[in-house]
Amino acid sequence: MPVDPTAPIEITAYKAVPDFARGHIKDVRLRWALEEIDQPYSVRLIGGIFGEKPEGYLDDQPFGQVPVYKENRITLFESGSILIHIGQKDERLLPRDAEGRGRAISWMIAALNSVEPPLQTLVVIDVFGEDEDWQAGAKAAALPFAKQQIARLSRWLGDREWLEDRFTIGDLVMIHVLRDAQELIAPHANLLAYIERGTSRPAFQRALKAHLEDCAVEELEPA
Amino acid sequence: MPVDPTAPIEITAYKAVPDFARGHIKDVRLRWALEEIDQPYSVRLIGGIFGEKPEGYLDDQPFGQVPVYKENRITLFESGSILIHIGQKDERLLPRDAEGRGRAISWMIAALNSVEPPLQTLVVIDVFGEDEDWQAGAKAAALPFAKQQIARLSRWLGDREWLEDRFTIGDLVMIHVLRDAQELIAPHANLLAYIERGTSRPAFQRALKAHLEDCAVEELEPA
Repeated sequence: MPVDPTAPIEITAYKAVPDFARGHIKDVRLRWALEEIDQPYSVRLIGGIFGEKPEGYLDDQPFGQVPVYKENRITLFESGSILIHIGQKDERLLPRDAEGRGRAISWMIAALNSVEPPLQTLVVIDVFGEDEDWQAGAKAAALPFAKQQIARLSRWLGDREWLEDRFTIGDLVMIHVLRDAQELIAPHANLLAYIERGTSRPAFQRALKAHLEDCAVEELEPA
Repeated sequence: MPVDPTAPIEITAYKAVPDFARGHIKDVRLRWALEEIDQPYSVRLIGGIFGEKPEGYLDDQPFGQVPVYKENRITLFESGSILIHIGQKDERLLPRDAEGRGRAISWMIAALNSVEPPLQTLVVIDVFGEDEDWQAGAKAAALPFAKQQIARLSRWLGDREWLEDRFTIGDLVMIHVLRDAQELIAPHANLLAYIERGTSRPAFQRALKAHLEDCAVEELEPA
């Protein structure tokens, strides 16, 4: 069981996350990767997704988000960067040859920069635009690009099992990103099956369970 | 002069880009990196930013964007992934030690996933929301997060010259991203000076010139 308070690798996660966001926070990606390679890690819980962060946290994570990754004297931030670092330890996550590595990283960055932003925009419009008079117009303007990106991803995937010829950190991030957009994905049976293939991996199941146990609180009590 | 039609490295770029987007397309990032290390490259122009892409282009770039990078038998996409590949050739772009490399990649991914998306959202609201009744409400909802991210970046930078102790692909992408948001950055003198430091590098100037020469057309003539 990779969660081990004495492990030399430490990640940060939130203690309090509202119900709709649980499972979607980015520490899940690191837990999943570490579970895939049986690498123990400890967790530092830093409070709630909203509100003040602990003293000094912006020095570790300049944008105040999770996760931060510490290993001996190295401090890294941004899940994509940390996954490359972890992947370089173990080819089960990231191939060692230049082409395989480059293709896996291309897909991971596509997930972070070409797929997640338009999906995230829709989440923000849904959550922050609730009952606002701009919601419908903004959503109508944002939807076509998000749909196009999902359709193009589905086109590429076709009947492949993974985005390339084997599971990598590219699939790991893409699948975690796609979980935020079940409604948009519904017309694409191959993407639904792809998400199901990813999330039924035992490593994902263990990672999600550990994440949910850590952020079981809706809101922290005021100090 | 790195642009060389016989070079083994080929990148794609657009021939037609509307005036407001020139200089902001992502092939600039690759040209800049390749200029920094005097690595020759050839350019394949694929038509306009809008409209149909050449036959087969989605097999090289599943989302239909630029740039694609080809080198011998390797095809990569997503500027961030290609910059890691190029950086691994030359430590002037990406340190070789695990910590230096990890920090540089953390900043590059922060630029792609924590800074570019909120800035891009504002660009989209400005461009596609023009004269629309939802523009003001959507902009008011999107601004605070974008301002927060810029303020946190400014806090980190402080009086540093670069994001870490030397120029890396993290600065290269961050500076290219920040050029899209001059108005938001105006209150932060250190960020203005940082962008100026980056864009006054001779390699950036050569890259921008080559990019602008390639996309000097506003719109392609209908076939």
